Amino acid sequence: MTAGKVNSARHGDNPVVNIVLAPDSFKGSLSAPEACAAMETGLRRVWPDAGVRARPMADGGEGTLDAILHAVGTRAIRASMQVPGASGAPVEAAYGIVDEGGVPVGIIEIAQVVGITDPVAMQSDAGSRDTIGVGVLMRALLDRGVRDLRIGLGGSSTSDGGAGLLVGLGARLLDHAGRDVEPTPRGLATLARIDLGGVDARVRDARILVLSDVDNPLCGAQGAMTVFGPQKGVAAADIAAFDASLAHYAGLAERAFGRSVAGNAGAGSAGGLGFALQLLGASSASGAEVVAGVIALDVALAGADWAITGEGRSDGQTLRHKGPFVVAQHARRCGVPATLVSGSVDAAALGDLGRVFTGCFGLPNGPMTLQDCVVHAAALLADRTEQVARVWSAVPR
Amino acid sequence: MTAGKVNSARHGDNPVVNIVLAPDSFKGSLSAPEACAAMETGLRRVWPDAGVRARPMADGGEGTLDAILHAVGTRAIRASMQVPGASGAPVEAAYGIVDEGGVPVGIIEIAQVVGITDPVAMQSDAGSRDTIGVGVLMRALLDRGVRDLRIGLGGSSTSDGGAGLLVGLGARLLDHAGRDVEPTPRGLATLARIDLGGVDARVRDARILVLSDVDNPLCGAQGAMTVFGPQKGVAAADIAAFDASLAHYAGLAERAFGRSVAGNAGAGSAGGLGFALQLLGASSASGAEVVAGVIALDVALAGADWAITGEGRSDGQTLRHKGPFVVAQHARRCGVPATLVSGSVDAAALGDLGRVFTGCFGLPNGPMTLQDCVVHAAALLADRTEQVARVWSAVPR
Repeated sequence: MTAGKVNSARHGDNPVVNIVLAPDSFKGSLSAPEACAAMETGLRRVWPDAGVRARPMADGGEGTLDAILHAVGTRAIRASMQVPGASGAPVEAAYGIVDEGGVPVGIIEIAQVVGITDPVAMQSDAGSRDTIGVGVLMRALLDRGVRDLRIGLGGSSTSDGGAGLLVGLGARLLDHAGRDVEPTPRGLATLARIDLGGVDARVRDARILVLSDVDNPLCGAQGAMTVFGPQKGVAAADIAAFDASLAHYAGLAERAFGRSVAGNAGAGSAGGLGFALQLLGASSASGAEVVAGVIALDVALAGADWAITGEGRSDGQTLRHKGPFVVAQHARRCGVPATLVSGSVDAAALGDLGRVFTGCFGLPNGPMTLQDCVVHAAALLADRTEQVARVWSAVPR
Repeated sequence: MTAGKVNSARHGDNPVVNIVLAPDSFKGSLSAPEACAAMETGLRRVWPDAGVRARPMADGGEGTLDAILHAVGTRAIRASMQVPGASGAPVEAAYGIVDEGGVPVGIIEIAQVVGITDPVAMQSDAGSRDTIGVGVLMRALLDRGVRDLRIGLGGSSTSDGGAGLLVGLGARLLDHAGRDVEPTPRGLATLARIDLGGVDARVRDARILVLSDVDNPLCGAQGAMTVFGPQKGVAAADIAAFDASLAHYAGLAERAFGRSVAGNAGAGSAGGLGFALQLLGASSASGAEVVAGVIALDVALAGADWAITGEGRSDGQTLRHKGPFVVAQHARRCGVPATLVSGSVDAAALGDLGRVFTGCFGLPNGPMTLQDCVVHAAALLADRTEQVARVWSAVPR
């Protein structure tokens, strides 16, 4: 039997249970702070006096901005601006500026600009989407004096190799006739030359940290287009040609920047935004680990009895450094059992998940449509957390 | 916090967890013994050495015969015979004969004869179904020398007030012209006289114990037709007329038998079979309590750490002396927490259920159709039990 190290005896006769709530967002239904609130509602029905430490979690993808801003509190400002989304239609993209000892650090979540949950973008042709808006947002932060940027990659609808980002920062992508080509999977086919003359010089001075958990290179069988293109809506018939265009673009871009990064781990993250950011000198770190540090997860776990995490859908991918996995790893090091309560849990992955999490639960309490799960997510999450807590509370100690 | 009385310290350093599995059947997917097996599969993944006591449970309805026969083992024989089903089409009805100290006790589950899960019966007109087959089966047991009968009521597709049962035992139902009328809700409208002359005399000598949890009277606003008719497929437009026919029949039957029972609690169980059996002198008892006694539930619970029960669907009705409720009551008296793992748990009843059960869980681990729940019930039940057990096992003791 697995047993945490924490001994409740020190609490005396009427032990207060200390619980860390560190879910990622339930994509499409609950933000991570909303998930924390629902979990706490359920816990309070069992233990009105429980010590609850809410630490909304994220992994660099959607929800990362809110998780960081929630954690740093008054040291941050949250703002937003209108930039082009993946299809060119304007989106209102939130960003943050955190005061780190007098230094303003910009927080960008690319899902705010080119997110795969943007219905307008997802209705557009996957071969015609670009990341220009991300470059525009970066420039806006440079204009505000920011020279330190944390950029959460993940949850993008794009596969442009970051060509749009470069254009947004001032680069020009030209064909043989010197005409601008679109920085899209389809447009890159006729690319002949990249002119970096107009790139905002302040970008080169900026310290950019990319938050990502994707190890894929830019091109090839393990590349962004082949692996992630299909789930973004790229037609199977286009994959090979688009991948070749990305490789062609990558060669020209690497020559222009004077460095080779397309084969690096992470160059293929966020449809190749990782590639472009690496060309710009960005370093990278595990998104979930960076967020765990920002939210001081280990501090919360110290002395806790139990941790609960979750996400919209848990499957084999969860074990590739997604938020709940990192929470479970940190919890294990602190001797705290970590239970998973997600929107759904892939039955095929339950064996592997069961070795990491102390119990894995989905939201439905009976036959239920995805639509009903999403609409009633908060109530279901409160109920499920409550019921698991009732089991916990009944074990004789 | 609720805490069981059992102290695992007596088990030494490597405690063996003792668990009672006492689910009812998951109607339409798993028998109670199958549910026990699935639960045990899940538990063994967490505790290979757990002490598991499987006690398949039932409440007088479908599954009662198997639960009793499973419990008494070699003291019982299981047999079956062909009798008319609710629509008149033959069904193969199982029954049991238990040797109780040399006395043969017959076990009848009326769901075997006129079960609401019989697709042939359910396709027939609800106003034309009868319980003749139950009387035929009783006579067959009398022919085998049985004078003690336990009859599990519940799960019937019929609403004939037990008129069919009386006909099956030899009574005649006649109209003004002396012609036989059908012992059905529709046929009883023209009933003028009941002739008990042909009723098997041995029935009057038999000791009949009815297992039922329904308190409804035969007729009226709380009667069998009004309350249960709709779920058996009786058209709304027919309810009032059929209820009046039942009252008319009841008056004639009571006069023929010389006793008044239509207003008694339980006369309305199984579409009025309770009424006819009470006329025959049957006594009655809570089905779930009788089964709990037969399966020696309290013996199993003594010294156990945890009990797990369940059923196909748990809702407010569960708290009206259904199998899992009775298991939870017995477990509470023994100081053992009882957890509910059912096919589905009605969210609206979760508050009430949560006061009775130590954690309530449904089978799905994500959005899922009823069909998938039913088809994969065994695997899902093993998984769900395993995950709840993982939480249990992680609580520091």
